[in-house]
Amino acid sequence: MAKELKNLTKRSENYSQWYNELVVKADLAEQSDVRGCMVIKPYGYAIWEKMQRKLDDMFKQTGVQNAYFPLLIPKSFLSKEAEHVEGFAKEAAVVTHYRLKTNDTHDGVVVDPAAKLEEELIIRPTSETIIWNTFRNWIHSYRDLPLLVNQWCNVMRWEMRTRLFLRTSEFLWQEGHTAHATREEAEERTRQMIKIYADFAEKVMAVPVVQGVKSETERFAGALDTYTIEAMMQDGKALQSGTSHFLGQNFGKAFDVQFVNKDNEMEYAWATSWGVSTRLMGALIMTHSDDNGLVLPPELAPTQVVLIPIYKTPEQLAELSAKLNAIGDELRQLGISVKVDDNDQKRPGFKFADYELKGVPVRLVMGGRDLENGTIEVMRRDTLEKETVSVDGIAAYVKGLLADIQQNIYEKALKYRDEHIYECENYDEFKERIKDGGFFLCHWDGTAETEAQIKEETQATIRCVPFGVEQTPGIDMVSGKPAKCRVLIARSY
Amino acid sequence: MAKELKNLTKRSENYSQWYNELVVKADLAEQSDVRGCMVIKPYGYAIWEKMQRKLDDMFKQTGVQNAYFPLLIPKSFLSKEAEHVEGFAKEAAVVTHYRLKTNDTHDGVVVDPAAKLEEELIIRPTSETIIWNTFRNWIHSYRDLPLLVNQWCNVMRWEMRTRLFLRTSEFLWQEGHTAHATREEAEERTRQMIKIYADFAEKVMAVPVVQGVKSETERFAGALDTYTIEAMMQDGKALQSGTSHFLGQNFGKAFDVQFVNKDNEMEYAWATSWGVSTRLMGALIMTHSDDNGLVLPPELAPTQVVLIPIYKTPEQLAELSAKLNAIGDELRQLGISVKVDDNDQKRPGFKFADYELKGVPVRLVMGGRDLENGTIEVMRRDTLEKETVSVDGIAAYVKGLLADIQQNIYEKALKYRDEHIYECENYDEFKERIKDGGFFLCHWDGTAETEAQIKEETQATIRCVPFGVEQTPGIDMVSGKPAKCRVLIARSY
Repeated sequence: MAKELKNLTKRSENYSQWYNELVVKADLAEQSDVRGCMVIKPYGYAIWEKMQRKLDDMFKQTGVQNAYFPLLIPKSFLSKEAEHVEGFAKEAAVVTHYRLKTNDTHDGVVVDPAAKLEEELIIRPTSETIIWNTFRNWIHSYRDLPLLVNQWCNVMRWEMRTRLFLRTSEFLWQEGHTAHATREEAEERTRQMIKIYADFAEKVMAVPVVQGVKSETERFAGALDTYTIEAMMQDGKALQSGTSHFLGQNFGKAFDVQFVNKDNEMEYAWATSWGVSTRLMGALIMTHSDDNGLVLPPELAPTQVVLIPIYKTPEQLAELSAKLNAIGDELRQLGISVKVDDNDQKRPGFKFADYELKGVPVRLVMGGRDLENGTIEVMRRDTLEKETVSVDGIAAYVKGLLADIQQNIYEKALKYRDEHIYECENYDEFKERIKDGGFFLCHWDGTAETEAQIKEETQATIRCVPFGVEQTPGIDMVSGKPAKCRVLIARSY
Repeated sequence: MAKELKNLTKRSENYSQWYNELVVKADLAEQSDVRGCMVIKPYGYAIWEKMQRKLDDMFKQTGVQNAYFPLLIPKSFLSKEAEHVEGFAKEAAVVTHYRLKTNDTHDGVVVDPAAKLEEELIIRPTSETIIWNTFRNWIHSYRDLPLLVNQWCNVMRWEMRTRLFLRTSEFLWQEGHTAHATREEAEERTRQMIKIYADFAEKVMAVPVVQGVKSETERFAGALDTYTIEAMMQDGKALQSGTSHFLGQNFGKAFDVQFVNKDNEMEYAWATSWGVSTRLMGALIMTHSDDNGLVLPPELAPTQVVLIPIYKTPEQLAELSAKLNAIGDELRQLGISVKVDDNDQKRPGFKFADYELKGVPVRLVMGGRDLENGTIEVMRRDTLEKETVSVDGIAAYVKGLLADIQQNIYEKALKYRDEHIYECENYDEFKERIKDGGFFLCHWDGTAETEAQIKEETQATIRCVPFGVEQTPGIDMVSGKPAKCRVLIARSY
């Protein structure tokens, strides 16, 4: 492992390869033998579980309840909302049969032609259609609203080019679907959820994000408005990390979900949907990690502190283990997740490299001299700084250090991000500078034509009209036409 | 709702219909428009989430880690283990294409024939094949073992006749898959997991179970041994509630998973797999519930205590609400999940009926006279008994009551079960008595022929060779041949 670690490509050499190698070497995920589908390994899944738990708590605090809807969607459901089918039909995995039978040579199985479905079923790429088809039976009166439902599940979008976590044919996600009695309430929920995603990204993942609203071109298929959070990776590219959609009455109308409102009139229900996926794992890895491996925020690290003895004799190992286990217990009592690694089959150097690769936030090392002196060596993974401190009060010290690391990696990422956001008024300059990455704030005339031209000529896209930016009218740098506001433009994952 | 509740079919009239109605009326689940697939509604899902959380903790305490493997399995993988394909090919949902396109009349979508997969993919009915194909790359030395992995996911088995929770084409489950260096260790893990399932059923679900080992006919496809827990429903039928399989080296050989053992020799890895599913919801409902609705064990009730005011004036409602909220807070401090229902849009009678239907374990009701007297009415859902007690010390009282209910419903189910286990030596008598349900302990000659005859003539099956039953040799009641032991025979879900 120590040897393999050294083989990790440096970010400066090839950022993309560094990422691909790190995901595999840190035991987060790997390609499966099923095209475009990944295996999420136990260490990667443990991080995802922590994300799930925290997000789920945040959703529930706003009144959202979990439920579960079918994996398979009748083909005809997709067609009911015109834009929706346009967006998802081209990447749909289609179930056509429900039985296999033994082949003629009796050495394998073939699809049984007699078991053909009358109507093909699609593996959900997203569940608006099946959920709104269900909502029709749940919603009759304004008293049934709002309906706030979420599901954690797998979805499938047949991608031609895939990358672990960032773009896979199957991925895990949560999809929230809400129904409301008024447009205002639905719009408010749409914004509420993007704020929750931003909070989660910044406070839990330590990933700063730009919140904003998508251009019409980049909207979710079937939405009137799509809000987004965009994070900047260390190569200056944007990673869309979560979206929240105001769907208007599109799905209410497509699936005939009407209710009696307070004025005793029939009205179509107003909809939102919002989701984040295992893509967040990609954002987490690419925001913080370095040439030595993962850097994990303490809030999401499966193991927050590892304790390692350095010993010369079995007797000394026993003594050190006892001491480290006692410290481990102190840490656990403060709610810190701890591993005491006194495995004598592996050398300390190997362990150091492995836990660095895995991004364990704090490493505590104790040797013979420490035993005598009542000290312990503390290393923080974010800066790799070491110091030797007294074991007295070590638990409280480490707890403070974890909070410090959480804060530090957020600020480091924020600084990087802010240093790579540029205002730009000149398209030639933009075309040159975009090659080095970064977020560009540029005036846009609001037309799809200009947007398409930028994408075609620079591979950059309008990520959003950002919130929290003071907006003044100006001139579109591409078309020279008047522009109402600046948009955020970047190359993206 | 109160009216609908009265319409719940009585168990004595039609047990099967009672179940079907209850699942829907208590808002647990409903049929979707996708054949055989259910929608798990928020209230049902909240119970399932509590099951998941507790089971997951129990697994992790034994060193199991969660992971995630692909939904889709190449058709050829299934064929690699001869018995496995035999067991699952006939109910496989098959993905044959990966794209839809607009139809000729531009009013819908059709499967794009150009997007046909080279090899069809099966939606996982269970994941031994894809997981052991992955394990090949994870296991090289005995030092990599044991490998203890679990996943929570959806699976699909194309069932012809479905019932909510009990038998659905798609269901949710966990599937544990472990690899070991020795046969003994794998067998020990197989037994360990069936014990965990039994513990969970009895202590958390309050459902008594018979543990035992399946006959060869009833084994999992590809297993050398299948252990099972069998619960008795209130109609005397058995419900298989969890299974744990010792798979020997079958999958190790089928997927060439070899490792260097301690003697430096290559050896195939030994396997187990084990699972429980949303079927447990069916067991939970049918074990405890009554003609008034659900009866939930406090350990799994999403709301353990509901507090309801009975008032004459808005002022009185305000006073009662304040008092009930204060009691609610006391209860929450003891870790009890509480709902104060002071909604003035619904009458108390409606609320009583609704919470009875939903199986909330304890109901606290306070009226004007209670306010004067410092008392509160306590109703326990399991017996429907009411008593009026002092509000002083109410929180501790309710906590004790919840424990008492958990114990009481277990003992009630245990008593019912034990009263309906019969020894039987005479096949004519058996054929008559099995019509009324119950578990029969009968000597069996160990042949598949006798087993098939019993099934054909009585629709009953050998559920298991039960553990904890004193076994003596005897005579098979069907064939008259010598029998080594008694087996448990019952009709089942």
